Amino acid sequence: MSSDVQGTGPSVPAIDAAAAPPRVKPSNYPEPYATMMAGRVKRPLGDLFGLRNFGVNLTRLPPGAISALHHVHSRQDEFIFVLEGRPTLVTGDGEVDLEPGRCAGFPADGSAHHLENRTEADVVYLEIGDRSAGDEVSYPRDDLVAALGPDGKWRFTRKDGTPC
Amino acid sequence: MSSDVQGTGPSVPAIDAAAAPPRVKPSNYPEPYATMMAGRVKRPLGDLFGLRNFGVNLTRLPPGAISALHHVHSRQDEFIFVLEGRPTLVTGDGEVDLEPGRCAGFPADGSAHHLENRTEADVVYLEIGDRSAGDEVSYPRDDLVAALGPDGKWRFTRKDGTPC
Repeated sequence: MSSDVQGTGPSVPAIDAAAAPPRVKPSNYPEPYATMMAGRVKRPLGDLFGLRNFGVNLTRLPPGAISALHHVHSRQDEFIFVLEGRPTLVTGDGEVDLEPGRCAGFPADGSAHHLENRTEADVVYLEIGDRSAGDEVSYPRDDLVAALGPDGKWRFTRKDGTPC
Repeated sequence: MSSDVQGTGPSVPAIDAAAAPPRVKPSNYPEPYATMMAGRVKRPLGDLFGLRNFGVNLTRLPPGAISALHHVHSRQDEFIFVLEGRPTLVTGDGEVDLEPGRCAGFPADGSAHHLENRTEADVVYLEIGDRSAGDEVSYPRDDLVAALGPDGKWRFTRKDGTPC
């Protein structure tokens, strides 16, 4: 629990999202993909309150950083809401520049997507994703697949099933 | 789908959240509770993108408005992130004033809660809740219970099970 929790006890939880601790492991990807996430900072928010059905991160992308590999989930829905800066949303069908107050949603088994910060200012956004059992992630531009294990951890392999 | 969708097609969805259409039925509560939600405007965002596992609303509370009856879900986790204004978060154990950038989470079967706008300026926040099957809502301050039906609709009764 953050030391910034306000109120009279754990049942009055409220925090300054920007002061939440960053995720301990910056990226779950194997190399060389983890290094490609350099600069990205994810602050898990939902976990601080004991939420289990979905995750909420406050994520900061400095100039040049990207949100993730180009990907799509099989069962997880995702949603982003831009708070600061102007990220470029890249999907398989095109690109669009976003700005604060704009949002986007990515239903399970929909279009692959990721965000890029091509500007000289930081981008900050909220990202939400549920934790549906049996979720898998496809990466159309990389030789990688991921599967969510029953322990809640992601397992990555190459597309031919070999470890990576 | 909003007419404000940007991009090259439905697979590049991005909208101005504040321009999303308000929910057609302002409140699902039976009377007299529905009237108590006067002024509250919920703009469903996740539904616009075809998300099914969780809902995201951009909700505006004018001065004097409240977010909901004091309540707690049995299975649904909830999360709020304040974008504008200074709502008061009320739980069974106390109250705390929030401000933009502060967030709070309400795990299933946790502490009952709601927000009140006791200020003279509008409050705007994002609210997220999953759609776990079999969810029920308890209202410790009101003679009301709600159960989520298999059709995704809420059914309200008094605490003795009679219709209301």
